[in-house]
Amino acid sequence: MNKIDLSQTAELLREHDNLLILTHRNPDGDTLGCAFALMNALRSLGKEVRVICCDEIPKKYSYMYSPDDLGELENPYIVAVDIADEKLLGPGVYEKYQGKVSLCIDHHISNKEFSENLYLRDCAAACEIIFDLLKLMDIPFTKQIADCLYTGISTDTGCFKFPNVTRDTHLIAAELIGLGADFTMINRAMFETKPRGYFQLEAQAINTLEMYYSGRCAVMFITQQMLRETGTTASDCDGLAGVPRKIEGVLISATFRQRTDGIYKVSLRSHAPVDAAKICLSMGGGGHARAAGCEIDPEHFREGKQRLLELIKAELDKV
Amino acid sequence: MNKIDLSQTAELLREHDNLLILTHRNPDGDTLGCAFALMNALRSLGKEVRVICCDEIPKKYSYMYSPDDLGELENPYIVAVDIADEKLLGPGVYEKYQGKVSLCIDHHISNKEFSENLYLRDCAAACEIIFDLLKLMDIPFTKQIADCLYTGISTDTGCFKFPNVTRDTHLIAAELIGLGADFTMINRAMFETKPRGYFQLEAQAINTLEMYYSGRCAVMFITQQMLRETGTTASDCDGLAGVPRKIEGVLISATFRQRTDGIYKVSLRSHAPVDAAKICLSMGGGGHARAAGCEIDPEHFREGKQRLLELIKAELDKV
Repeated sequence: MNKIDLSQTAELLREHDNLLILTHRNPDGDTLGCAFALMNALRSLGKEVRVICCDEIPKKYSYMYSPDDLGELENPYIVAVDIADEKLLGPGVYEKYQGKVSLCIDHHISNKEFSENLYLRDCAAACEIIFDLLKLMDIPFTKQIADCLYTGISTDTGCFKFPNVTRDTHLIAAELIGLGADFTMINRAMFETKPRGYFQLEAQAINTLEMYYSGRCAVMFITQQMLRETGTTASDCDGLAGVPRKIEGVLISATFRQRTDGIYKVSLRSHAPVDAAKICLSMGGGGHARAAGCEIDPEHFREGKQRLLELIKAELDKV
Repeated sequence: MNKIDLSQTAELLREHDNLLILTHRNPDGDTLGCAFALMNALRSLGKEVRVICCDEIPKKYSYMYSPDDLGELENPYIVAVDIADEKLLGPGVYEKYQGKVSLCIDHHISNKEFSENLYLRDCAAACEIIFDLLKLMDIPFTKQIADCLYTGISTDTGCFKFPNVTRDTHLIAAELIGLGADFTMINRAMFETKPRGYFQLEAQAINTLEMYYSGRCAVMFITQQMLRETGTTASDCDGLAGVPRKIEGVLISATFRQRTDGIYKVSLRSHAPVDAAKICLSMGGGGHARAAGCEIDPEHFREGKQRLLELIKAELDKV
């Protein structure tokens, strides 16, 4: 594995005329933004380029590409974007391309160094790297490229809210807007559009709220019955774990989501200085300081919940 | 009334040593951000400066100032920030300072030109103007000033989502973050923190959702009973009217909020090209193309709602 710089990355891309770009499974705005921006940029140099994703791309990203852009190529140079671990290529793609990625462009410091060449930089979105790369390669930014890159930056930063945002993030956003990125449409599609069932699920979940320790801890439940009643799936629950932490005065929240096998997946979210990872480690789980998770067996639900609440109380007592 | 440029604005501020800055009533992040940034900047030049707001400043803005910063001064030079109309000074302040504002710095093109001197520029946030003004005056930006200006820009743009965002908005945000603006804390306080009752009210309101015209129109209700049951007030409803428009497929939403006098305040929110203002005009109300309002008398509720739905259908039929 060679760690390379941005000029070497540009060089490798220039050398090949037939390139396949791989995204990670459960594709998000950043991996797709990287892939389709890079695809369009390299095509403008006369190259043949396609993108592969193991999963169906959610409809909300449809402005980024046309169906013809997806699919295999014969004997291509393989590029992975925004992928920290080969396994994240997902079913089908992983088996086929494992050990065959020639170039990986990534921003996760946890990158497993699985590719022949790796360009890695710690920044808010991998799309920030693609932006710099296209500049270096002197490729003109079309509106289409600007839309793709803005999408990655906006989604990976929660629309400029997350702590990963830097001065550079805004400087790049400024330039992309200058280039015509349709940020109003993009942010509406990414952050302001949800299926009706999501809102009904959220309403049901909010009705289960339990508050503990003078309102500093909120607990919320999502059951399989709620998913059935609202016609939603586990993927609709993604944003819900963040809701109870938004309640004024709450320092830590726990969202219990019942899986199809009955086991409760517990998602903890905290505000500084409460360490959610430490609590989850004691419960056999893990994660980050502000977002961590663990599981609770339905047969020992009462004891598990009680133990979790005691661990939470111990952390809150330190604040 | 003199329309002046930014240099003349700087000149007027330099000429006076005793300045009172007025904000608008129901103060938001932009009027407060302007006032406290300008206050700190002018104090750094040795001037005496205070801020006046007719309403109590909501707790979430407390990081911007200390209680001593508020209050009257003797024989001051009067500056209004982010104020389009003298009446927006609000009860008490309006009566006292009507006709006495020497300088107004504003970004509303609807400005009523009530002040002796007016600096007006059409931009996303009035804080963008204060940023340029302090640059021109060569006043160093402290972290405190950066926090205040970032707050105004972030809140007036829905955290960089609204169509009013420009390239310059992001360039200024980049510079403020470079100067130490605590954007994570600010955005959390502004967008991610709500009283518990708000979530309960939202859950109750979502349970009233009615869908019309193949899911293109959503109607939601907020009653006085809901406010009582959740311990919320009319001001907690501010963001709720935007919720039903977020449902996938919805082009226009109507939120009926019952006031204490029983009358229903109806808030329409639409996506382009549906014209909410046109519908509300026909109902005796008014507003903008994407956000408009009207009222419905409880004694004619059924007919009023029916008429509104018919007007909505006529607009949807044109899409």
